[in-house]
Amino acid sequence: MLQATASVIIALLMGIVGVGFVLWQTQRVLSHDQGNAVMRKIATAIQDGAGAFLSREYRVIAIFVVIVATVITLFLQWQTALCFVVGAIASAGAGYLGMYVAVRANVRTAAAASRGLHEGLRVAFGSGAIMGMAVVSFSLIGMTVLYLIFTGNPAQLTYITGFGFGASSIALFARVGGGIYTKAADVGADLVGKVEKGIPEDDPRNPAVIADNVGDNVGDVAGMGADLFESYSGSIIAAATLGAALGSDSAAAFIGLPFLVAAVGVMSSLFGIYMVIGEEQNVSLAVAYEDMSVTGRVTHFLRKQVARINENASLEDLLTALRRSVWGASVVVLALTLLTVLISGVSFNYWLVILVGLVAGNAIAYATEYFTSYTEKPTQAIANATQTGAATTIIQGLAAGMMSTVLPVLIVAVAILLSIWLGYKADGTIASGLYAVAVAGVGMLSTLGVTLATDAYGPVADNAGGIAEMSHLPDEVRQRTDALDSLGNTTAATGKGFAIGSAILTALALLAAYVTAAKIDNLNILGPTMLPGILIGAMMPYLFSALTMMAVGKAAHEIVLEVRRQFNVIPGLMDGTGEPDYKTCIAISTESALREMILPGSLAVVVPLVVGFILGKEALAGLLVGTMSSGFLLAVMMANAGGAWDNAKKWIETGQYGGKGSDAHKAAVVGDTVGDPFKDTSGPSLNILIKLMSIVSLVFATSFGSGWLSF
Amino acid sequence: MLQATASVIIALLMGIVGVGFVLWQTQRVLSHDQGNAVMRKIATAIQDGAGAFLSREYRVIAIFVVIVATVITLFLQWQTALCFVVGAIASAGAGYLGMYVAVRANVRTAAAASRGLHEGLRVAFGSGAIMGMAVVSFSLIGMTVLYLIFTGNPAQLTYITGFGFGASSIALFARVGGGIYTKAADVGADLVGKVEKGIPEDDPRNPAVIADNVGDNVGDVAGMGADLFESYSGSIIAAATLGAALGSDSAAAFIGLPFLVAAVGVMSSLFGIYMVIGEEQNVSLAVAYEDMSVTGRVTHFLRKQVARINENASLEDLLTALRRSVWGASVVVLALTLLTVLISGVSFNYWLVILVGLVAGNAIAYATEYFTSYTEKPTQAIANATQTGAATTIIQGLAAGMMSTVLPVLIVAVAILLSIWLGYKADGTIASGLYAVAVAGVGMLSTLGVTLATDAYGPVADNAGGIAEMSHLPDEVRQRTDALDSLGNTTAATGKGFAIGSAILTALALLAAYVTAAKIDNLNILGPTMLPGILIGAMMPYLFSALTMMAVGKAAHEIVLEVRRQFNVIPGLMDGTGEPDYKTCIAISTESALREMILPGSLAVVVPLVVGFILGKEALAGLLVGTMSSGFLLAVMMANAGGAWDNAKKWIETGQYGGKGSDAHKAAVVGDTVGDPFKDTSGPSLNILIKLMSIVSLVFATSFGSGWLSF
Repeated sequence: MLQATASVIIALLMGIVGVGFVLWQTQRVLSHDQGNAVMRKIATAIQDGAGAFLSREYRVIAIFVVIVATVITLFLQWQTALCFVVGAIASAGAGYLGMYVAVRANVRTAAAASRGLHEGLRVAFGSGAIMGMAVVSFSLIGMTVLYLIFTGNPAQLTYITGFGFGASSIALFARVGGGIYTKAADVGADLVGKVEKGIPEDDPRNPAVIADNVGDNVGDVAGMGADLFESYSGSIIAAATLGAALGSDSAAAFIGLPFLVAAVGVMSSLFGIYMVIGEEQNVSLAVAYEDMSVTGRVTHFLRKQVARINENASLEDLLTALRRSVWGASVVVLALTLLTVLISGVSFNYWLVILVGLVAGNAIAYATEYFTSYTEKPTQAIANATQTGAATTIIQGLAAGMMSTVLPVLIVAVAILLSIWLGYKADGTIASGLYAVAVAGVGMLSTLGVTLATDAYGPVADNAGGIAEMSHLPDEVRQRTDALDSLGNTTAATGKGFAIGSAILTALALLAAYVTAAKIDNLNILGPTMLPGILIGAMMPYLFSALTMMAVGKAAHEIVLEVRRQFNVIPGLMDGTGEPDYKTCIAISTESALREMILPGSLAVVVPLVVGFILGKEALAGLLVGTMSSGFLLAVMMANAGGAWDNAKKWIETGQYGGKGSDAHKAAVVGDTVGDPFKDTSGPSLNILIKLMSIVSLVFATSFGSGWLSF
Repeated sequence: MLQATASVIIALLMGIVGVGFVLWQTQRVLSHDQGNAVMRKIATAIQDGAGAFLSREYRVIAIFVVIVATVITLFLQWQTALCFVVGAIASAGAGYLGMYVAVRANVRTAAAASRGLHEGLRVAFGSGAIMGMAVVSFSLIGMTVLYLIFTGNPAQLTYITGFGFGASSIALFARVGGGIYTKAADVGADLVGKVEKGIPEDDPRNPAVIADNVGDNVGDVAGMGADLFESYSGSIIAAATLGAALGSDSAAAFIGLPFLVAAVGVMSSLFGIYMVIGEEQNVSLAVAYEDMSVTGRVTHFLRKQVARINENASLEDLLTALRRSVWGASVVVLALTLLTVLISGVSFNYWLVILVGLVAGNAIAYATEYFTSYTEKPTQAIANATQTGAATTIIQGLAAGMMSTVLPVLIVAVAILLSIWLGYKADGTIASGLYAVAVAGVGMLSTLGVTLATDAYGPVADNAGGIAEMSHLPDEVRQRTDALDSLGNTTAATGKGFAIGSAILTALALLAAYVTAAKIDNLNILGPTMLPGILIGAMMPYLFSALTMMAVGKAAHEIVLEVRRQFNVIPGLMDGTGEPDYKTCIAISTESALREMILPGSLAVVVPLVVGFILGKEALAGLLVGTMSSGFLLAVMMANAGGAWDNAKKWIETGQYGGKGSDAHKAAVVGDTVGDPFKDTSGPSLNILIKLMSIVSLVFATSFGSGWLSF
């Protein structure tokens, strides 16, 4: 087991390096200037709102954590409960830090954008990088320290599944609560502000405008971070657990591999981040290249990798800069994992599996981009359908969303098939094939530090634009923040691709770990309780989405009433002399998001337990398969339909089909509004539902029997 | 095998009785008067359009049938190909007859409604009964004759799977082609007529109005009929096949049971139909009840069962009349099957299984009604959401549709679980449990003759209303046809509940038969190709729905252009002096429906074969499970969301939230239009997709190997 322990210690050390970067970079971002007094005032309001929401949300989650930890202690053992609590705290900590920085980086991005485009990008992306690296390193440190505490005994790996459960719980509430918050505020602000009062977006007279800006952060930064924290941790735990079960002679190498891949992933991500935020330097050859020392040549090479972005950079240029950083990190991770695989003595096939994971993640991201970008046919077809009204816009959008599931499903199916086959060929069993699926998941997420940075950067740029608008900064600043914002919308597709792809691979690996842990011998798909389990499982994402969509509707309705009330009773609000009461809108969003997240959140934990106890452990496996397959499809459909409607509206706003204010635009706004809860609440929450249900089952695997009906 | 052959012969005889009823009833319906010259002219136009569509559709399908029959002969054997062709012809024949009568009963219903409400109901329902009994008896005769031809040897039951395949193929094209036709014409007529020109629905000036009325028949009569023909045949074939595999000592009874249940179902359905269309008679006790002969008492009892409907009957009264007939048939079928089970010597548990099937079918129908009726909360919540515009209407409708999946899934899951458990307890194997699932499916559909009548009656009443409107019949007539139409909308929920419930049970039974036929030993859900199969399977309903929804959009667009063109070039069309060219709109609907049905229809046949050959027979089982679970959910969601939007609009039209013409109504119209392809094209087609993919796999079961990847 020495090799496993050594790998874990290496991962721990890289986690500490990651934390070092996070601290250094946080201080660096916060040192930027915060602009003028108006900007600072708006930013403070957003910071206060976000802080208030997060601390209230964490208090609610704390109750849940205490209850679940007690249940785990009573029914299982205290070690798992401890890991559960640590997982919850680590995830919450990463989310808190990421958001703490994001709501401070927004105003600094706006200020930096006054000086130049690359300056703005560097601050915004730098703050995204803090979120990305915090997620990766907090997760690594948490898991490795727990592993080392529990003597490194692979049998005790089951305790560490508690860490994943804790992380999942936070993720679910953060995604659902944050998702409801952000869309309630957004829809509520738009319905009264834009539609009824005819004032523009981000207008400071709108009482819900600050809540809207807070929402971007609590939904997209904290929510997405917790989501991927969970996938990252879950994939490593699943791989280690499956690796430990593969047989004692090479178990150490199998357990160690995911940790080593994660460790080199940290380095690669740091390289990728450096490519964007490194200081631009003139790479003049003071000495001839041939005469340089090795260090000199490396330094020269590294300097050349820093993105160079000038003032007139197009969206395409900015996109290239971010893509180069993700791809750069991928190349580095492939090189380093090749070394790792060769040194650790596992089959070369596992490196191919890592390659499969990385390629699949990027391919899904590409497919997502194709189906949601307004330069491509599917979104343009939606824009075209706006000409015959809202109904055809919705039909076309739903159809496009359904169509967009084909490629991701085929990519994931091929990735699973190849991984199982490569693992099977390497070690001769289907179990080694399933281990390979987990490794593919780890590979897909190895560069998470930088891919999450490209995603978490978006809301910061979006907020920066809002602040620039509200504080009446010059047009050129607003143009720069708009460019950064558009970039964020496009890179969001990447994040979503990785989030859903990794969720499926992780969930499958967790399912395999569950089946092993529950000692299920016969998992015949025609077993007596299997199909009922699958059907109920397939229904869960629908029930869950119904609840979250209705929650957004209810919460938005409350915001609408409040905003209308303020416009009625506050004198001079419309002509800018009255002062809107931002805090009440923030309080309403907070209250309703917290209230509405309880039911769907609890269902995700309770249903697997109920099915496991009543219908038995085989039915529970069926439940997980049903939720996984149906949830995958629904999640992709909702996310892509939502993204495509959003961009179809933006396409029309560039002047197509009559541009802003035309009938076509009105139809497009209907599509966009329907898409809001699709893409930012219900859709992404399904990723977590899939993983959380799997990990709950894994944690309680040994408790389930054969159910109430005897066969 | 004598017992099996005897059962089959009884079923054949009851099939012949059914055909006798169909002929007698057809002559009876056609003998009603056809009203005035205007009515006859409109009716002739509808008849011509429907006839033209069906004969062109059948010509396209004939090509498909010839190709597939050739493939079956080459790769399997000519016997299966023969059964395939017979199945296709029997289904097409029932569909043709049902529609032939429906497009003649519509004008007779309108004429009969001039004389009274019950008169109208009797003609319309009588025509629905022809469809219902034609489906049941054509299917029974086809299967039993083929069974007898092939010497009654259970090993040759596999040939008869070809019959199911033939029926499925017709069903798919009828549903998809008819579904595209009806919604293209409907949406196209409304978008120009109601929205652009401001003329009412069913206005004879609208050039697409006849196509719209034709659509009701080709979509709802022929489509629904072929759908249930397929479920009915499939459930009997699956039960007989699984029964034959159960072991030789009682195989004869197991093979015979589904045929006997179907046979007594014919009698029960006839009784149920009689309860609605029997002549009303005064049941005066001329002789004291005590003094009557047995025959006299039976006659007296039967006479009392005929529904009595007076002129002022409310919707509730009419509904009660139809429900009594369905429930009456159910009671009779339960009594007769109890006798059958006791006589045939199988376990009493199988009677309980039939009970489970019937109860489940009715329970799903009830749940469907709850979620789509405007007197209930879910639909009223959608109506409420119209106040804040189209976007919230759509969000609320989708959420309600998703929520509406919970009950049907739980009902089906419990029905499957109970059936498997009862069958397992009866004969001790999981195989007998799966046989029981098939028997539950047969039980659910045993009263199909009458349940389908309540469903196929709807479009006739709808058409009658259109004819009454177009030929300017007095208001009271229109009120009566409106009452009949509302009734049809409500009973449609019943039909949809049975269609989807039976589709799942049948598909599961077919899957079990496939697994047996393909000789798959290990169907581990974590097998190497299983999860890729499941994911691809889960994707199929999304791909299929995307294609059909886009097809409706495209076809409707062509109709819109043509209707606009006619209003532009035909002088006096708007003021009623010009003559619209109905035929061109009919031709466009026909062409585009036939063109657009090819791709989704072929996919359903080709994908299982491709997956079976490339990924192997285990992956194909996974594919079927994935399609079944994901398709079930999507079908229920789409059907119920569509129905709820439709009724939310109707609720507003009763004067709620400002009534017709208000902003709320406009938002409701958007919801209704989105719901059109949901509930009448994509949603119901999924039932057939599920069954067709299963039966294709069963027919080719012996051809698949272990796929290209070696494990």
